[in-house]
Amino acid sequence: MYQKPKGTKDFFPEDKAVFSKIADSLRCTASGYGYKEIEAPAFESISLLTAKQGEEIKQQIFLLESKGEGKDKEEFGLRFDLTVPFTRMFIEKQMELPKPVKWFGISRMWRYERPQAGRLREFYQLSVELFGSDRPEADAEIISMAIDCLRCLGLTSKDFVVRINNRVLLQDFIKSMEIDNYEELFRIIDKKLKMPPEAWDKELEKASLNAGDIKKLKSFLKTKDVDKISLKSAGLDNLRKVFEMLRSRKDFIELDLSTARGLSYYTGTVFEVFDRKGNLRSIAGGGRYDSLVELLGGGKCPATGFAIGFATLQLLLEEKKLLPKTDFGVEYYIAPMGEKAMKHALRVADKLRDKSSVEVDLMGRSISKQMDYANKTKARRVMIIGDDEIKKKVVKVKDMKTGKEVNVNI
Amino acid sequence: MYQKPKGTKDFFPEDKAVFSKIADSLRCTASGYGYKEIEAPAFESISLLTAKQGEEIKQQIFLLESKGEGKDKEEFGLRFDLTVPFTRMFIEKQMELPKPVKWFGISRMWRYERPQAGRLREFYQLSVELFGSDRPEADAEIISMAIDCLRCLGLTSKDFVVRINNRVLLQDFIKSMEIDNYEELFRIIDKKLKMPPEAWDKELEKASLNAGDIKKLKSFLKTKDVDKISLKSAGLDNLRKVFEMLRSRKDFIELDLSTARGLSYYTGTVFEVFDRKGNLRSIAGGGRYDSLVELLGGGKCPATGFAIGFATLQLLLEEKKLLPKTDFGVEYYIAPMGEKAMKHALRVADKLRDKSSVEVDLMGRSISKQMDYANKTKARRVMIIGDDEIKKKVVKVKDMKTGKEVNVNI
Repeated sequence: MYQKPKGTKDFFPEDKAVFSKIADSLRCTASGYGYKEIEAPAFESISLLTAKQGEEIKQQIFLLESKGEGKDKEEFGLRFDLTVPFTRMFIEKQMELPKPVKWFGISRMWRYERPQAGRLREFYQLSVELFGSDRPEADAEIISMAIDCLRCLGLTSKDFVVRINNRVLLQDFIKSMEIDNYEELFRIIDKKLKMPPEAWDKELEKASLNAGDIKKLKSFLKTKDVDKISLKSAGLDNLRKVFEMLRSRKDFIELDLSTARGLSYYTGTVFEVFDRKGNLRSIAGGGRYDSLVELLGGGKCPATGFAIGFATLQLLLEEKKLLPKTDFGVEYYIAPMGEKAMKHALRVADKLRDKSSVEVDLMGRSISKQMDYANKTKARRVMIIGDDEIKKKVVKVKDMKTGKEVNVNI
Repeated sequence: MYQKPKGTKDFFPEDKAVFSKIADSLRCTASGYGYKEIEAPAFESISLLTAKQGEEIKQQIFLLESKGEGKDKEEFGLRFDLTVPFTRMFIEKQMELPKPVKWFGISRMWRYERPQAGRLREFYQLSVELFGSDRPEADAEIISMAIDCLRCLGLTSKDFVVRINNRVLLQDFIKSMEIDNYEELFRIIDKKLKMPPEAWDKELEKASLNAGDIKKLKSFLKTKDVDKISLKSAGLDNLRKVFEMLRSRKDFIELDLSTARGLSYYTGTVFEVFDRKGNLRSIAGGGRYDSLVELLGGGKCPATGFAIGFATLQLLLEEKKLLPKTDFGVEYYIAPMGEKAMKHALRVADKLRDKSSVEVDLMGRSISKQMDYANKTKARRVMIIGDDEIKKKVVKVKDMKTGKEVNVNI
């Protein structure tokens, strides 16, 4: 028997129905904010894919074997996110589009992982991008949309929290400590919640921070109120405005100065969404990436956005018993008795299909076997058509839940 | 500027909206017949992908570069259809599922084509599979579903025709001519409509048919009435039943004994859908493939199905002016004047979003620039909020189509 590739998932009908309902809910929220759905090819040129994170990301790209030679040689890889292809699309069309451009996509992407790691190689995300606004309103909208995406699925402020920070503020604070290598410190700070405190202390020491600096840094990172920070920083001003504009969602958000987000391309607001219990990996994350458009050759253009991964989201919804319900039976299962009845069954099915889902027996089975099939597939009503019914032009319709039978003219 | 790979397509908002509406319509038809949507990974093992058509298809597969070594070495390729992965999924679950199993998928697949050919390397299909029934009812259902998929999109019997044949009948006829090599003749017959008559005659001669055989074959292939064929053939009996069961769709179908469908895995009913004008490549095609499940290691199990390609379908819909209309404006664009107004705007937006799509200015623009944006993005109504409106707790809402303004309490 052939196996599916490790790290990928088959979507059988129940899985696909759950996925579609979640996707539709996210789609509805995004459309409510005036964002438009787009899609890009599954693969892109390697030069585009490595423009953002370089060789580091190349290790994780599924490369496609090139068949062309010489000038026909093409190098492609499967996309590892949606932001890079969507930004390529934005650059192509930016001259003709009124700003801001608000796009989203719900689709899959791929990362090469060693099969033994048990991690996903094919995964699904909602990715939301907002091009053209450098203002805190835009960041606040992105965060409020991420919150609403989860709320629309039934999650509340008891289930998840959005941790918000600003990279410029963090950078300004580190500069105020007279430490230059803030990129490295970003990375260490970002790891804070992912390791034991002692291990984290060691990382700081390795980065040649002295005891005084470590104390000062820790006290800063503990700050939970954006108004209690005193530092001259454009990042702080921005962050205050974002919190101000998210006042109606204050139960969902908190300041977390240790949220740095590993990816070096974030340039301002950054946020990550976690389950309150802290059992799961991050559910969503995003922030401002004002340098990406330029990096990809599109000139200066500010941008902000976020992504929600389906895998962790589904785990959380399952834990909270919020997975969408899927109802699977057809509305009518038509059970013909014999060949003559079959012709009538097809005619009745044609009529009913204008408004309902209808199955007709395709196996030439006995009535008892047909009832068995209708039961197992959760058909809601069964309609039996035999010679008698055809003569009388009346069929019996049985409600499979209540067991009640009614006669219907045909 | 980075380019998308040749042979792929970007779906900008309008493209994606059209695609989604077509997909939703197909989904609706398939669900109406009691079929369930599924999805499979984008890539599969090379051994699975080449099981059906062998090395011939390998040329057209996008291979993924293997990173593992020795026993970790994995060979994957992007899927070139949905039937093969879906059949793999069926085999995995067949013991626990009541038969028939009725599945469909709407998704993309990939074929390696030289870039100069101008053909698609990434393309989308609806693929419908019915496992477990060997009866003509099943074939008739598949064909009637293909017809209804197109009808639901607004196409009529004046726009397209379904050409139906049966491979067993064709085989029996060729056998009756005492020609053994029917596989080769299948292929030649399948090419009949794709080449000039003289070239086709030459092909027949190459296959060592004599003038008498050619005459006999041509006269047979011209037959347009299934009742006018006299031949002892199980394929003919089957085909007659299929036509009988499709009587309500007789305007959409015709017998075409030259429809053989190249793929050697078809085993019975075969059909292809063409535009009546004959301008386009085939819009859909399908048939019975009773040997595939066994070929993929799942034991004996009959199956039938079809696929509709999005590319040709969209061309036909465009020609017939039937492309779904997409309406793009948000229901409300809220234009705040100043920072205080922005806070109110956000609150109003929150309330309206329960039921409507709402955009708020994210650029801190003047009212005239905001009106310009609202116009360009086809917002249906604009709501202006300034200090005066806040004081009076009344806002003006302008209908952008009629120009009418009404006051609304906030």
